[in-house]
Amino acid sequence: MSGNRNADDDNPSAASSRRHADNMPYVHKVGVPPKQNLLKEFKFTFKETFFHDDPLRPFKDQSISRKLLLGIQAVFPILEWGRRYKLSLFKGDLIAGLTIASLCIPQDIGYARLANLDPQFGLYSSFIPPLIYAIMGSSRDIAIGPVAVVSLLLGSMLQDEIDPKNKLEYQRLAFTATFFAGVTQFALGFFRLGFLIDFLSHAAIVGFMAGAAITISLQQLKGLLGIKTFTKKTDLVSVMRSVWTNVHHGWNWETIVIGVSFLAFLLLAKYIGKKKKKLFWIAAIAPLISVIISTFFVYITHAEKKGVQIVNHIEKGINPSSLHEIHFTGSYAATGFRIGVVAGMIGLTEAVAIGRTFAAMKDYHLDGNKEMVALGTMNVIGSMTSCYVATGSFSRSAVNYMAGCNTAVSNIVMSCVVFLTLEVITPLFKYTPNAILASIIISAVVGLFDYEAMILIFKIDKFDFVACMGAFFGVVFASVEIGLLIAVAISFAKILLQVTRPRTAVLGKIPRTTVYRNIHQYPEATKVPGVLIVRVDSAIYFSNSNYIRERILRLLADEEEGLKENNLPRIQYLVVEMSPVTDIDTSGIHALEDLYKGLQKRDIQLVLANPGQAVLDKLHASDFANTIGEDKIFLTVGDAVMTLAPKMEP
Amino acid sequence: MSGNRNADDDNPSAASSRRHADNMPYVHKVGVPPKQNLLKEFKFTFKETFFHDDPLRPFKDQSISRKLLLGIQAVFPILEWGRRYKLSLFKGDLIAGLTIASLCIPQDIGYARLANLDPQFGLYSSFIPPLIYAIMGSSRDIAIGPVAVVSLLLGSMLQDEIDPKNKLEYQRLAFTATFFAGVTQFALGFFRLGFLIDFLSHAAIVGFMAGAAITISLQQLKGLLGIKTFTKKTDLVSVMRSVWTNVHHGWNWETIVIGVSFLAFLLLAKYIGKKKKKLFWIAAIAPLISVIISTFFVYITHAEKKGVQIVNHIEKGINPSSLHEIHFTGSYAATGFRIGVVAGMIGLTEAVAIGRTFAAMKDYHLDGNKEMVALGTMNVIGSMTSCYVATGSFSRSAVNYMAGCNTAVSNIVMSCVVFLTLEVITPLFKYTPNAILASIIISAVVGLFDYEAMILIFKIDKFDFVACMGAFFGVVFASVEIGLLIAVAISFAKILLQVTRPRTAVLGKIPRTTVYRNIHQYPEATKVPGVLIVRVDSAIYFSNSNYIRERILRLLADEEEGLKENNLPRIQYLVVEMSPVTDIDTSGIHALEDLYKGLQKRDIQLVLANPGQAVLDKLHASDFANTIGEDKIFLTVGDAVMTLAPKMEP
Repeated sequence: MSGNRNADDDNPSAASSRRHADNMPYVHKVGVPPKQNLLKEFKFTFKETFFHDDPLRPFKDQSISRKLLLGIQAVFPILEWGRRYKLSLFKGDLIAGLTIASLCIPQDIGYARLANLDPQFGLYSSFIPPLIYAIMGSSRDIAIGPVAVVSLLLGSMLQDEIDPKNKLEYQRLAFTATFFAGVTQFALGFFRLGFLIDFLSHAAIVGFMAGAAITISLQQLKGLLGIKTFTKKTDLVSVMRSVWTNVHHGWNWETIVIGVSFLAFLLLAKYIGKKKKKLFWIAAIAPLISVIISTFFVYITHAEKKGVQIVNHIEKGINPSSLHEIHFTGSYAATGFRIGVVAGMIGLTEAVAIGRTFAAMKDYHLDGNKEMVALGTMNVIGSMTSCYVATGSFSRSAVNYMAGCNTAVSNIVMSCVVFLTLEVITPLFKYTPNAILASIIISAVVGLFDYEAMILIFKIDKFDFVACMGAFFGVVFASVEIGLLIAVAISFAKILLQVTRPRTAVLGKIPRTTVYRNIHQYPEATKVPGVLIVRVDSAIYFSNSNYIRERILRLLADEEEGLKENNLPRIQYLVVEMSPVTDIDTSGIHALEDLYKGLQKRDIQLVLANPGQAVLDKLHASDFANTIGEDKIFLTVGDAVMTLAPKMEP
Repeated sequence: MSGNRNADDDNPSAASSRRHADNMPYVHKVGVPPKQNLLKEFKFTFKETFFHDDPLRPFKDQSISRKLLLGIQAVFPILEWGRRYKLSLFKGDLIAGLTIASLCIPQDIGYARLANLDPQFGLYSSFIPPLIYAIMGSSRDIAIGPVAVVSLLLGSMLQDEIDPKNKLEYQRLAFTATFFAGVTQFALGFFRLGFLIDFLSHAAIVGFMAGAAITISLQQLKGLLGIKTFTKKTDLVSVMRSVWTNVHHGWNWETIVIGVSFLAFLLLAKYIGKKKKKLFWIAAIAPLISVIISTFFVYITHAEKKGVQIVNHIEKGINPSSLHEIHFTGSYAATGFRIGVVAGMIGLTEAVAIGRTFAAMKDYHLDGNKEMVALGTMNVIGSMTSCYVATGSFSRSAVNYMAGCNTAVSNIVMSCVVFLTLEVITPLFKYTPNAILASIIISAVVGLFDYEAMILIFKIDKFDFVACMGAFFGVVFASVEIGLLIAVAISFAKILLQVTRPRTAVLGKIPRTTVYRNIHQYPEATKVPGVLIVRVDSAIYFSNSNYIRERILRLLADEEEGLKENNLPRIQYLVVEMSPVTDIDTSGIHALEDLYKGLQKRDIQLVLANPGQAVLDKLHASDFANTIGEDKIFLTVGDAVMTLAPKMEP
């Protein structure tokens, strides 16, 4: 028993201890953890899965009234930061709010078109949702409103169900989808399932966003070239065919001149803003300036009579109620639910990524699940007030941050500006050419094509790059949904591959140490004669237990072949380094038992080094620890070799 | 640079070296692996995923004619072992073959009823498929034929599509499903995707089989109690209701007497066979004896006129062709495909598990993918010769093994006996009471309810036990398919949970060593003042990168709180032990970067210990190794603490 060895070390007379220490270096016994408590273990797993960020910590040891106050503050963070709000903060929020408002108004009108909705719905979605978020959200930098990718996704999924020309029914389904998107977001946050969005990997998102940027830009060719009959499909091939078949009769040269020249202006502004961070405001107000100039230009030249398509009409006034338009039952409710879940998840992914990025930059804590509850509530209320799915916008949030926002008050300022726009100046947009909106959208989504991130992904991880490209080409050549599906599928395949085919390594002794490492990583490491040391690089689960057993036996066969050729002594001990083996299940135990039996027949001893707590628990529960003998389990590979080497037959 | 440190150690004058060694123990540099080759890495991953067992090894360095011969032998192993076959082996094979034949004939008739097919189809499936397997398979102990679970699964899935009373159409769909089951099995083996069946965990199979045993036994109540109108559903509630509503008029007491008394005899025989391994043949021939006695008894008493249901008619003669009956196109082809995939996978799972078990017991190698090709071919040919899905039977394989089979010749012997049965003695089965078949099936599936395995699973792994019970209750209370679905879902959830919420541990120094281990597993381990050492127990992937970053920061916050309360020095170094971190992806690198930035703000240094080859590659590719500094990456935690401790501020 290993316990005896330890007792020998601790309690002998000083003399024998020294002698003992000279002959045989100290070997520490393997820690046998206390018997696990089922309930406690379950509680721990449950907590780590759903409450790993310990959201109830501030509530501990507080009076009931204080708990109530903290609870209300947790749901409405504005009550907490609002009390500490100072006028000095307002300056930054005001400037940021005005800046993002100038950016969002033209974008909203364009994004609504992307979702096949009338322009006012874009503005509606920048009025109510930011107000709700300001009350319930905890990010200080996010800018709320419609975004390009969600608009595209919603538009393409909705038009598969209902022809957008059937305006009323189309709108109803849009609100229904928005409602269920909000419910999905709320439910994920409320039931603390927010981690589900982590299953869309960074690489997949980069690819998906880049593909969406291409697809959205392609869609803008309709407005930019003044084409009247355009394909409904979003894939590259259909769109390019649609563009070329219209080349002789469908293109409108006046539109192209306006569109392309303003696109050049916008991209130049964006470039300047990127080069000189201080001049970011040029990029921020360029869209509004373009709208004003081009609208004025069309108004005085009456270019709309020469075929330049214009916005024509935006409904005046703030959001009407749309509660009665939502399908709560029937087949459209099911369709709306399906679309809503997808749009809601993508919306969440975008908003949470933005929230996390800026929280990390300003070093404040953001509770992902609480954010989801806020976003969900915002979209549920939005769906009842004629809004479609709103979320955090990458580009506007960056502008918000750079313009010096301090709190969510900048969203309130933006909302107020949108309110004034809806109430007062919508008629002025009548002559705004569609080409300008197309230019603004293209210049907005250019940033989503993050080729630098792609290059980095290629450098770091080839499998990630495959996921990235899969999502990208899926979106560009098939459809947004298929791209998304590919991205998720590849991400899952990666996880499954990891647990199905884990790495293994043969270890050797690093010279002048008692440390054993992979002989491929450390070519200077030397093998110990008569001992094969194998490291298994994964938890041993049903999905890989057979593979691991076969892999170890194959490594053994290879080694024995090599030894035979060189007439070296045979392997007597197989040491399995278990440090990376974080867990084992019943299939894993069976695999070890089979391995043990197979080795017994060849007169090779199985030795385990450094099993962790969870593994050791199970080795004992299954009695496998007794089968191989407790004296075959060591704290380190070094200890194992040191103890076993003297016992080997010559 | 770590390289410099090493150079210092290697090349100084002897005197300075000794002095140096006294002041500062030896620190080995971290191995920077050679630049990875993309193609090589891809080839390696591909090989490990699909060809991990190196099936082409024997072909290396052989002449072309030899390669051809080896190739043919690989497809038809009989050519290899057949040449070495000796008469001395035949004795064992003959006895084993006769024993399993006596067992399989009554079972086949019963299992065919379970699949809602006429009895002869069960016998057909024990004639052709074993012959094909004997030629192509490489297991020496497996006994091929229809099995209970697949019959039940097939029967319940087929009758959801077509009423079994519509015999011809029902048969056609059964052959179609069998054809596609064979194609599935062949394809999985041929494309070396055999590892997919490993995703059904051992625990899930135990639960599934136990549930199937209960369900099959419940179905036998119809025959055992002589009930005429019986529910088509398989769940416990429906069956029990069906049994009780028939209690007054539907039960036939003569049938019950025959059925229950023979069931008692069979179970007793089974018990004896289990207690005394030498008497296993009693259990093996008991079914045939029961059939003979009961048939004779019914014949002389004319019990069939008192309501005892009998087999009545079995078609005489061997398998007719059924090629023209298979649906290759149309909607039934799609339905057959769906059913075939499920039945084929379950058949594979059973056959491969049996093959592996006996291969391990007799210590010979079995190529899972080659087995699948053999099983697939067998079922494809079977589907064209009026057979339904055949696979390896647990109970008959065990009998085969115990009766002393040596090669697949025992399957050929069995096949010959079945041939004679079909040609000569089927009319004799006319008076066999259905109750006997029910008793035989019940006594055959009793062994599938492996309560000892369940107890062991409960002891070893609670999550596995949940999967086991989920599958069990799913099969018993819902249906076979739902039980299967639950089992697969829970198995996947387990994998995902592992990669989403990996364990972390705070490490301390084991006294009298330089080894650092989990302070919960080793309470004697002591923390190092000013240093927090955290071990991450998983690859860092997109699915857990955020969690890991937050978890590390939370451990840091907890530690700092504790230090503050006790007025101890602040944390200056955060050491992340990376031994179990087998891989990292782009999201993981980003999480480390965020962690690094967050720690920088608090004036804490991030230190990495023992990153593996794959991780180190990516740390360099992403330039993160330079960001934190190569001198912050160590071979072991011990080295890190030893190097950093002297540098700490007081």
